[in-house]
Amino acid sequence: MADWQEVSGGVTAAKGYRASGIKAGLKPSGAPDLALIVSDVGAIAAGVFTTSCVRAACVDFNRQVLESGSLVKAILCNAGQANASTGEEGWRNAVETAQLVQTALETEESVLVASTGVIGRQLRMDLIRPAIPQVVAALSVDGGDAAAKAIITTDLVTKAIALEADFDGIPIRVGGISKGSGMIHPNMATMLAFVTCDAAVAPTLWQEMVSRACDRSFNQITVDGDTSTNDMLLALSNGQSGTPGILEAESPTAQKLEAMLTEVCIYLAKAIARDGEGATCLIEITVSGASDQAAARQVAKTIAGSSLVKSAVFGRDPNWGRIAAAAGRSGIVFDQTQLDIQLGDFVMMSQGTPQTFDRNAASNYLKSPTVQIKVKIGNGAGEGTAWGCDLSYDYVKINAEYTT
Amino acid sequence: MADWQEVSGGVTAAKGYRASGIKAGLKPSGAPDLALIVSDVGAIAAGVFTTSCVRAACVDFNRQVLESGSLVKAILCNAGQANASTGEEGWRNAVETAQLVQTALETEESVLVASTGVIGRQLRMDLIRPAIPQVVAALSVDGGDAAAKAIITTDLVTKAIALEADFDGIPIRVGGISKGSGMIHPNMATMLAFVTCDAAVAPTLWQEMVSRACDRSFNQITVDGDTSTNDMLLALSNGQSGTPGILEAESPTAQKLEAMLTEVCIYLAKAIARDGEGATCLIEITVSGASDQAAARQVAKTIAGSSLVKSAVFGRDPNWGRIAAAAGRSGIVFDQTQLDIQLGDFVMMSQGTPQTFDRNAASNYLKSPTVQIKVKIGNGAGEGTAWGCDLSYDYVKINAEYTT
Repeated sequence: MADWQEVSGGVTAAKGYRASGIKAGLKPSGAPDLALIVSDVGAIAAGVFTTSCVRAACVDFNRQVLESGSLVKAILCNAGQANASTGEEGWRNAVETAQLVQTALETEESVLVASTGVIGRQLRMDLIRPAIPQVVAALSVDGGDAAAKAIITTDLVTKAIALEADFDGIPIRVGGISKGSGMIHPNMATMLAFVTCDAAVAPTLWQEMVSRACDRSFNQITVDGDTSTNDMLLALSNGQSGTPGILEAESPTAQKLEAMLTEVCIYLAKAIARDGEGATCLIEITVSGASDQAAARQVAKTIAGSSLVKSAVFGRDPNWGRIAAAAGRSGIVFDQTQLDIQLGDFVMMSQGTPQTFDRNAASNYLKSPTVQIKVKIGNGAGEGTAWGCDLSYDYVKINAEYTT
Repeated sequence: MADWQEVSGGVTAAKGYRASGIKAGLKPSGAPDLALIVSDVGAIAAGVFTTSCVRAACVDFNRQVLESGSLVKAILCNAGQANASTGEEGWRNAVETAQLVQTALETEESVLVASTGVIGRQLRMDLIRPAIPQVVAALSVDGGDAAAKAIITTDLVTKAIALEADFDGIPIRVGGISKGSGMIHPNMATMLAFVTCDAAVAPTLWQEMVSRACDRSFNQITVDGDTSTNDMLLALSNGQSGTPGILEAESPTAQKLEAMLTEVCIYLAKAIARDGEGATCLIEITVSGASDQAAARQVAKTIAGSSLVKSAVFGRDPNWGRIAAAAGRSGIVFDQTQLDIQLGDFVMMSQGTPQTFDRNAASNYLKSPTVQIKVKIGNGAGEGTAWGCDLSYDYVKINAEYTT
């Protein structure tokens, strides 16, 4: 059905990108913790950042770079320290890190930086300075997996995808990696996601595409309702596919590229929700009948974020009243006599009236790896989807024992 | 310091009130589940209700009664079925229940109704009809405790208080009862709270006082971020104290009464937060330096609602970065270089810069029954407080196993 096919390689699938991931000693576990993504030629860059007013130094730094409109050569990402709430010293460290990468790559084009880990801890510059020549030396056209591994924290699995589509005989590829897996309720994007593309796209159009794709993907997932200080989606496009420039938003090629980009972002976002801290399943909530897409998405995301809905799914308890309650408090006004609720194939409420259903079978359905909830709130054309995960004992365990 | 003193009796402490609580068989546990509060003379009534558009039938019914301005004779409350998401049948049951109480009390004055329990279940009218003469027969001037017991669900403790103050030689009393303890993130009031007062107050002034008190108390607690379909604060005042009428908002007597009413509401709200499902402590967050009180309250409530802050407190982990992150995403904009964070007496961040502190001592402090977090976001005069509880394994356990 889709106009594209999946290919391997993650962020190094698109032409003209290399990546690497190494152990710099920033994580107490000794796991890989420093990733680098480099474009052979300066790429246009788009970004979406946390809306929090407590922001990591790297967020502010990257916003400045993107506002300058300069081409981007590389993205460096460390795990272990978030470099958020670190004051002036944190800012100086972000700037120095980018400069060190520029020096090591012998480039004057811009370098973006990203961090994830404990808030309030300074970057371990004593470890990062000597590690930068190493992460540059490790760059490879097959390095997408290594980079995906080096950006994760409490994630159980790496998250990477790449798609390829034919554009008048020439392939364009879009690939990406992301990490979760707590403090996930992006008010822009998940904690960190990096996307690479080899299309030649007008910079403002690329930013528009990235923002819209983000709204439909990373902004529609929630693990625990906590928007992070470091949330960041960065997307590069370097024109190395050799396809003609994509300049007009309304053109079929632009729409095809945006659809492929959105698919990559949705894949990465769902992977984060499914791997949410302590999660045992992915919950997909589709809302229809709203006045517009934004309203539908808001209702869907409110249900995805309800601790009571999440606990009920973990307990395999088809307690649909909690779905109704979460929809009702979303801030989107609807007539409760129009409300339909369906869990998998089980109709639980129709036109505001409870329906009888097989509770044991519905409870069994809740053991599926993906649980689907469908809610209709009226007769409008607006539809939207959100993704979340269940709330388990392990979420509490992971977060009660994080820094001590 | 306070102008008032605590007295016993809860909702029957004020003059001219009787109450009762009986077992009608609505709860599978067989615990008391039907409560009645009656004023000897028709009382003026004020209310604050859930802002959810999925509302219990009793919420809509009571709003109609309050809008009519009629005097209120009684409040009947059942636990076991929430009578929310129950369609037309649910509405008819709410109306019939109120009429049955009117008949049993031989009154034409209005009766308010409230329900709590599982959403989507119809009221067990077969059990309620025969129980109403019994709950009327059980009315007593000492019945406040019995009523407090009959309105709870997963609550571990009953919640009741009464205060008395002297008004030019004559005492006025305000008493109340409430229940939690999950689906607690009131966008008005907690699930259910009933307040009685024997002052003679102008009805519109009473409603204003009740709304303001609610904003500073029930609207500032959160257990799990889930606003309920049944949230309701009802407050009666029957003039039986014999004190002169309180008519002017600016008068010293009105201000004294409002302060006492607010104290009762804050006590009941804190009791709900402390008894939140699975909670092991009360968390009190005070925010200062905001542009106004509403902004300060919003920041405080966002921190109180953060799953990550709550998990860290449960784990006795002084991970203050999560407090900074929650403040930053509250929707209130501030300059992060002005941010101060204090946990008990431990200063963790000052002017946006991390401070060194004794982690072991801070972790020990988190074992206190009440954990105090102080946050300053600037130099404004706005202050506000919110209350929450920690997030424990037991919250998940309770909510994973609720209906099945």
